[in-house]
Amino acid sequence: MTADTKNNKPDTGVVDVCPIGVIRSCYTEKFGIPRQPGMADKARARIELLAPYDREEMVKELDVFSHIWVQFLFHDAIKEGWKPTVRPPGLGGRKRVGVFASRSPHRPNHIGLSAVRLFEIDRKSGLSLLVGGGDFLDGTPVLDIKPYIPYSDSLDGAGPGYSGENRAPVHVCFLKEAERFCYQYEQETGRELSGLISQVLRQDPRPASQRGRKRSFGFRLWDINIRWEVRNNVFTVVECRRVQELL
Amino acid sequence: MTADTKNNKPDTGVVDVCPIGVIRSCYTEKFGIPRQPGMADKARARIELLAPYDREEMVKELDVFSHIWVQFLFHDAIKEGWKPTVRPPGLGGRKRVGVFASRSPHRPNHIGLSAVRLFEIDRKSGLSLLVGGGDFLDGTPVLDIKPYIPYSDSLDGAGPGYSGENRAPVHVCFLKEAERFCYQYEQETGRELSGLISQVLRQDPRPASQRGRKRSFGFRLWDINIRWEVRNNVFTVVECRRVQELL
Repeated sequence: MTADTKNNKPDTGVVDVCPIGVIRSCYTEKFGIPRQPGMADKARARIELLAPYDREEMVKELDVFSHIWVQFLFHDAIKEGWKPTVRPPGLGGRKRVGVFASRSPHRPNHIGLSAVRLFEIDRKSGLSLLVGGGDFLDGTPVLDIKPYIPYSDSLDGAGPGYSGENRAPVHVCFLKEAERFCYQYEQETGRELSGLISQVLRQDPRPASQRGRKRSFGFRLWDINIRWEVRNNVFTVVECRRVQELL
Repeated sequence: MTADTKNNKPDTGVVDVCPIGVIRSCYTEKFGIPRQPGMADKARARIELLAPYDREEMVKELDVFSHIWVQFLFHDAIKEGWKPTVRPPGLGGRKRVGVFASRSPHRPNHIGLSAVRLFEIDRKSGLSLLVGGGDFLDGTPVLDIKPYIPYSDSLDGAGPGYSGENRAPVHVCFLKEAERFCYQYEQETGRELSGLISQVLRQDPRPASQRGRKRSFGFRLWDINIRWEVRNNVFTVVECRRVQELL
């Protein structure tokens, strides 16, 4: 037993952590990012390991696991600091809960946690992991990668807490022009744009404060700006356009 | 899209993290700690929140969740640094895997992750969380607390990786004197000592390197030193003694 266990202080005070990787993601802005991973499995991300952690031996046998944990920094929220309470979108943005009772980015230490599918370890240029279903903003710094171990991570008896609440289902449709754009983009890039747009919209990415008022919204995936409109529970994609064309 | 997404660097370099709490646990030394949480559900721990994070509002509604994630520092491993590869005990200590393919403490940033049962939010002196099933060393600094959200954290389809391998079952028995000691200790303290000893031993806490050689082992829970012997797959608890008595 160390001396520290006798008083109220942890054995370690402030500690430096350093990114071991950086995420390249289709989510180039915050709006539209699913509130939890796994909600949009067409989302793909690449975790580029940074030196000195980009050594082949460090991921030896990782590919026998189907899923991994990514512990990362909510880098976009660091400058805004943390809040003692937040209003989770899952509760319609009306109810306040403690930040430790949420997965909000505005938390002390700004550490995020997501389980994602591991598709491939890519050794073509540097070392990177191709993953699916993440909720990462492009440029996210990664602090750690761990295997997902079902017998300790997948808890059968865990209750849903307040996260089990349901909303009215959302129907997504595309105007002809937007559909055509997506088709062409998919041919050019291999990215499943229309499928991902549908998955993102079905999560209803609107901030609770904007529901029922504003009718027209925009968000970005990769280099594409997407404009969509809401009428009751029908979300219509009215326009897709490359960012450069807007300039 | 920020400028940083165009090069290979994350948006954030080295970042300071600071413990939000400290863990009081029955595991006062490393030997005996289950290799994964949830293996010994009689293990209890108390997460004491530290100022300025010990405010009631910060855990508002946390108690509607049955389980929580604890992100913590492997503080005991920090001074030893990290290793690119490790030999997980689950593989008998023979096979080397990348540290990112393991849950080893000897990892970059030394961040651990455990899902534990939340029993109670205790407000009697300061603010603390009583949890069960953890694998924490006493004095462990906590970086974050998050609710366990089944729909994104509990993955039905996740494969076991190499973690699904089985060992021969272990049988645990107590010599009369040790059994009597446990009974008395339980009466005095309310701690389920004999049940916890059984759970810990059934995980076979011996380092792989010591299997088949040494016959007698010791480990500590709370302030009790436990001595046990191995014959085939029968583990016999031969003695329990308070630490003070040894001095």
